[in-house]
Amino acid sequence: MTRSFQTRREFVTTTAAGVGAALAGASTARPLRAAAPYQTGRQIGFAVAGIGNLATNRVLPALRATRLARPTGLITGSPERVMPLATEYGIPPDSIYTYDDMDRMRDDPSIHAVYVVTPNGLHRDHTVNAARAGKHVLCEKPMAVSVTECEEMIAACDEAGVKLAVGYRLQFEAHHLECIRLAREKAFGALTMIEAGFGFRIGDPSQWRLRMDLAGGGPLMDVGIYALQACRYLTGEEPVEVVAFASKTDPVKFAEVEESLVWQMGFPGGCLGSCSTSYNLSGMNRFRAYGPRGWCGLEPAYGYGGIKGHRSDGAPLDFPHMDHFVTQIDDFAQCILEDRQSKVDGMEGLRDMRVIEAIYESARTGQPVGLQS
Amino acid sequence: MTRSFQTRREFVTTTAAGVGAALAGASTARPLRAAAPYQTGRQIGFAVAGIGNLATNRVLPALRATRLARPTGLITGSPERVMPLATEYGIPPDSIYTYDDMDRMRDDPSIHAVYVVTPNGLHRDHTVNAARAGKHVLCEKPMAVSVTECEEMIAACDEAGVKLAVGYRLQFEAHHLECIRLAREKAFGALTMIEAGFGFRIGDPSQWRLRMDLAGGGPLMDVGIYALQACRYLTGEEPVEVVAFASKTDPVKFAEVEESLVWQMGFPGGCLGSCSTSYNLSGMNRFRAYGPRGWCGLEPAYGYGGIKGHRSDGAPLDFPHMDHFVTQIDDFAQCILEDRQSKVDGMEGLRDMRVIEAIYESARTGQPVGLQS
Repeated sequence: MTRSFQTRREFVTTTAAGVGAALAGASTARPLRAAAPYQTGRQIGFAVAGIGNLATNRVLPALRATRLARPTGLITGSPERVMPLATEYGIPPDSIYTYDDMDRMRDDPSIHAVYVVTPNGLHRDHTVNAARAGKHVLCEKPMAVSVTECEEMIAACDEAGVKLAVGYRLQFEAHHLECIRLAREKAFGALTMIEAGFGFRIGDPSQWRLRMDLAGGGPLMDVGIYALQACRYLTGEEPVEVVAFASKTDPVKFAEVEESLVWQMGFPGGCLGSCSTSYNLSGMNRFRAYGPRGWCGLEPAYGYGGIKGHRSDGAPLDFPHMDHFVTQIDDFAQCILEDRQSKVDGMEGLRDMRVIEAIYESARTGQPVGLQS
Repeated sequence: MTRSFQTRREFVTTTAAGVGAALAGASTARPLRAAAPYQTGRQIGFAVAGIGNLATNRVLPALRATRLARPTGLITGSPERVMPLATEYGIPPDSIYTYDDMDRMRDDPSIHAVYVVTPNGLHRDHTVNAARAGKHVLCEKPMAVSVTECEEMIAACDEAGVKLAVGYRLQFEAHHLECIRLAREKAFGALTMIEAGFGFRIGDPSQWRLRMDLAGGGPLMDVGIYALQACRYLTGEEPVEVVAFASKTDPVKFAEVEESLVWQMGFPGGCLGSCSTSYNLSGMNRFRAYGPRGWCGLEPAYGYGGIKGHRSDGAPLDFPHMDHFVTQIDDFAQCILEDRQSKVDGMEGLRDMRVIEAIYESARTGQPVGLQS
């Protein structure tokens, strides 16, 4: 596991990666020149892989609204079906790819990066394929469905000299950033407890989120990961131990993945995290971080909009809405242009996946699971 | 363990207990006659054991405000110090007792029951002493500091033919009762998850709540028990398994008891309970019960007043304030007058203590602890 981290670090410190190759639409993974400074007027062209609801309603509109990016390609299993969308976004038919011919992107200079929005179980393959075609990758959360897959993705991007980021849009959102600031600056004293939960009632029983091969897990993979993220970025620490309980009241609908899951985490500084997730409840969408002198929190916390801040002292925790996808895409584009790692890079996705695997192990075995920090 | 339950049940079904002896101020624990019906105009005289803040500011004023009870005695380690209070409440000097001469109450016909408000570690002795003096007992929560003590208290009250209730005032509170109704009637579907937490930042480091011999534990014993109660009365079930994590950031202040603790419970119907308690945070005072179609909850939930109800559908969950001590004392007085068990009887206190011991065991061993239902 540490092997790929070292490889990545070694790579970053010893090679000039990314922006040159990407902007040039390089036909090889080898970097063409040293890291470029910010280039005014340049935009990163993104191909979107996985043209479903999220791509159509969030990602593509956001790509059009960004400052530093634009939609330049589509990757889909049904090229004929996305033609109208391609027309709408000015994407030429030549820049529509299938998952089987992603390698052909190597020769498409309009595509510098791929935003992977396919089901979780396909993230690894689509990320690796994009990297091998010399494209940077922004991969939706969860990064993949196992630690091993995350490591493979990091290694593939390192080898190809492309950047990798995970779609943790909330790490760029103002309410979340303010809570992180309050937590880190000990506005209510050092954190002693975090409650965080995200769940909803899932509909259509035939959807991929309920299939283990495509989803890699249930609500923990899908939305519980937000609660995990919140605990990690509020404390700024990695949990050292986790313990979890799963429950299933509908074994037909939830034949393959967990229905509800609660887990607790101990952090090195002494903060405890108490988290919940479920596909069989409505209206759980919150976190709250407590210290000796009070708390701050968000509810709703994790949606695409409507985030509301709350503080025990009644002070405002209120910021204008911004499109989370625009913000995260612009950040990743800027990272590419400035040749630096995203703060939500592959390592950040891998750290979550380590905890997620530990949570599942604890739920399965009934035993607490230690995590090396 | 089952021994004392059976003893108690056998006793209840084979003897006529309580009201006759109590109202007569019986000089023996033996019941004098069969259960009396409700007697209009009769009031249950209560002696209060432990004249601290709670007794002075809550219990004695409540006793004066009840319909069916009145303050008729004080039990204290400092008789001279409580003289002004005795005068204020019209309690004659003869009805002031020390913990060493509680047996003398046997001959005090004005005292039918004792409200035990002493530190947790003394509940067992004071309850047993009151029972042996032929008095009914209303004992503050936690009922005691171990399952064994709870069993001894139940046995002592059974043997003496007196009733025993635990100070679970919120089981008589309108917001809580409404949440119980919503949960049991599946207003939001069958419960799948409960979040419950109660904590505060403890002050004076010399107080008895931080001493293991007097408190029997930390915030779990003191306030976490409310979160446990909420999970139990919302589901109407006993947990079958618990797992817990404790944390300590101030090992000096919390040398003897836990500082913060989170625990999770699995219930037979599939509901998961996720609970938190701490002596080192501010403003945690809530529960929320989730079902597939929404949730109801209270925040603040557990204080003497100011309880606020919340529902996911925005419908009101709002009731006038009532004095919780008045309500619970009147209920216990009525139980005595009607010769029936309180719904918050010794068994209810014992059930909580079984879970509390399991939570501490899990926090200590790191292992999940099963509970027989």
